[in-house]
Amino acid sequence: MRWNLAVDRVPEAWFNVVPHLPEPLQPPLHPATNEPVGPDDLAPLFPMGLIAQEVTAEPWVDVPGEVLDVLRLWRPTPLVRATRFEQALGTPARIYFKDESVSPAGSHKPNTAVAQAYYNKQEGTKRLTTETGAGQWGSALSFASAVFDLECMVYMVRASYEQKPYRRVMIETWGGQVVPSPVDDPAHPGSLGFAISDAVRDAASRGDSHYSLGSVLNHVLLHQTVIGLEAKEQLALAGEQRPDVVIGSCGGGSNFAGIALPFVPDTGVRLVASEPVSCPTLTEGRFEYDFGDSVGMTPLLPMYTLGHDFVPPPIHAGGLRYHGDAPIICNLVRSGRIEAVAYPQGKVFEATVQFARTQGTIAAPETGHAIVAVVDEALAAKEEGAERVILFSYSGHGLLDLGAYDAYLHGHLTD
Amino acid sequence: MRWNLAVDRVPEAWFNVVPHLPEPLQPPLHPATNEPVGPDDLAPLFPMGLIAQEVTAEPWVDVPGEVLDVLRLWRPTPLVRATRFEQALGTPARIYFKDESVSPAGSHKPNTAVAQAYYNKQEGTKRLTTETGAGQWGSALSFASAVFDLECMVYMVRASYEQKPYRRVMIETWGGQVVPSPVDDPAHPGSLGFAISDAVRDAASRGDSHYSLGSVLNHVLLHQTVIGLEAKEQLALAGEQRPDVVIGSCGGGSNFAGIALPFVPDTGVRLVASEPVSCPTLTEGRFEYDFGDSVGMTPLLPMYTLGHDFVPPPIHAGGLRYHGDAPIICNLVRSGRIEAVAYPQGKVFEATVQFARTQGTIAAPETGHAIVAVVDEALAAKEEGAERVILFSYSGHGLLDLGAYDAYLHGHLTD
Repeated sequence: MRWNLAVDRVPEAWFNVVPHLPEPLQPPLHPATNEPVGPDDLAPLFPMGLIAQEVTAEPWVDVPGEVLDVLRLWRPTPLVRATRFEQALGTPARIYFKDESVSPAGSHKPNTAVAQAYYNKQEGTKRLTTETGAGQWGSALSFASAVFDLECMVYMVRASYEQKPYRRVMIETWGGQVVPSPVDDPAHPGSLGFAISDAVRDAASRGDSHYSLGSVLNHVLLHQTVIGLEAKEQLALAGEQRPDVVIGSCGGGSNFAGIALPFVPDTGVRLVASEPVSCPTLTEGRFEYDFGDSVGMTPLLPMYTLGHDFVPPPIHAGGLRYHGDAPIICNLVRSGRIEAVAYPQGKVFEATVQFARTQGTIAAPETGHAIVAVVDEALAAKEEGAERVILFSYSGHGLLDLGAYDAYLHGHLTD
Repeated sequence: MRWNLAVDRVPEAWFNVVPHLPEPLQPPLHPATNEPVGPDDLAPLFPMGLIAQEVTAEPWVDVPGEVLDVLRLWRPTPLVRATRFEQALGTPARIYFKDESVSPAGSHKPNTAVAQAYYNKQEGTKRLTTETGAGQWGSALSFASAVFDLECMVYMVRASYEQKPYRRVMIETWGGQVVPSPVDDPAHPGSLGFAISDAVRDAASRGDSHYSLGSVLNHVLLHQTVIGLEAKEQLALAGEQRPDVVIGSCGGGSNFAGIALPFVPDTGVRLVASEPVSCPTLTEGRFEYDFGDSVGMTPLLPMYTLGHDFVPPPIHAGGLRYHGDAPIICNLVRSGRIEAVAYPQGKVFEATVQFARTQGTIAAPETGHAIVAVVDEALAAKEEGAERVILFSYSGHGLLDLGAYDAYLHGHLTD
């Protein structure tokens, strides 16, 4: 069963969780002065429209009409009840997922890429720079740049650039330029940290360019709340009063924020963030100020962190290999409003293969971290003999991750 | 703009075009006797439920409830108006596409795979065999077999098996088995003809197995008519009385049949089949009885053919590399009800890249043959200053064909 909303039901305002936080959000700090970072510090990299969203305390922020027009290419996304998966698990739980894989780039990432490209275009930016690991975010920004007629320069981690060419081709199909990073050392396999450095340095050195980030920051999480807002309306159509638990995978936090933040004010709704045991930021990190990147160029952010020099093992859920997490998510974990769980990737693929064989669709490894947590919730409900409404974010498809499935199916996957 | 139908609007009967054909359909002939092939000849390979559909003259055939339940995992598929593409072309035409890429396997193929798996399961088949070229059909049948708990054995053209592993991994993710073909010559790169031979021989030699074909046959085309039936209802929702022209790419004919056959009785609706100039079956083939496969194992079919030993060049639209075409489609081309056009692949990719940069989604090269024909119709409407309603089948996504885009974008594509 699926619940589709008409295109005029794309949310016309983003939900800002900041007024609902149980504890005030600590500001980012300038690493040289330890003083809060101000708008002027961010102006070389971001347009004022986004900087204003980064610090706003307004409960709702209007979505510009031009952004809505583009989101309507694929939004509202379907809400699907995973009936066949429920049957396979033998659970009394009702499992719903919000299918963000239907976007052009195949994940939730374009929700913010479109908004960021729009505000940059409005303020005269000609060119955007960004980094990408496996390529999910780079392809989303290239698509958004094509729509608003901006140049797009993507610094892609060299190992991915060479071993996973398909995301590079997507970026180029939408007209973006992509180069392997680090740019000044062709022998280096690269890392997200180096790619951020390349992209920031590029944007800061040119008057026509800005930098764009795909997760972590407040305005990025804000843009993703269309996911949860639509899901609320669709759950009502499906006859559900509210979910008992909302689940999402969590790397930098933007996907989890999208599905979960609109439910923060709702009493009785548990929120569960799922991450890899090999990069256990929320479950084992320390809450402290740390750099957002690996080389120490960004402001200091108040977050759970494994240390900005932490190098996670090369697991297949590349989007979850981040040493820190969005300050808003960390704030809510710290206060107990969000629970965090962690899984090894073998269990993740076991769950996604079962999902594929019942529901049909093949999920991204990142999304698999939500699916395996759903399995545990559904089996707990079965054990208790209790009805339970589970909502999760199907954040992306795995069609460009089939090499990982190959490794799992042939026993070559390590945890 | 998109028009979604509720899940209870999946068509509950398939549309049979046979009673509407301007000339009677000639029967397939047994190659040894030149006599029409009867149900007994087909029984070793197909269940009686499908054999009955192959010869029925009933105007509608009920879709079993168990098939509807599975189709509803992704159907009804959206009808989308390509507003941004219209604007880029500067055309007064209104362009709509039916998005079949949202199925688990990423194309229209599961529409018939599910029905075929169901009828086989009903009649006690334990195991299905089939061939696949690049892997689109093999993955669709593996998915359908998973749903109905059948074993699935796919003979995959060896060159694709080795060079395009992702479709193989999809087949395995859904639990199917896949082996390179020809099975008895590991040095041979293989061809669809050899793979058919392997699959037919396997099914015929075992009492527990049947064979399954993804196109050409009457019952396969019948199952695909859900595409056009849904599109009719959605066009009405969009306020359109009828399309002026319906366009689809055409290889074996199942995708084109799906979108076009329900419009055959509708006066004033042009039907345009688009094929590659490198495999110009409908535009340059001869109408005569010929074998359906390359090695001469199948019945003789009345169709346009380039000769069953014709070997098309290795273009990227692998699904359109077939020497013949479905007898029903050929019948309608011969009578003038269907028009046929042909395009070189360079023009195809030019159109699909323009589509990707305006609408967002990256189409399969097969689907690109429809898009380039849409461009010509839209530009003709512009030249005439005439309104025109264009409907086409977006038969599949190109996410596993990005190597072809890479070749095009970097100037390595030949026509």
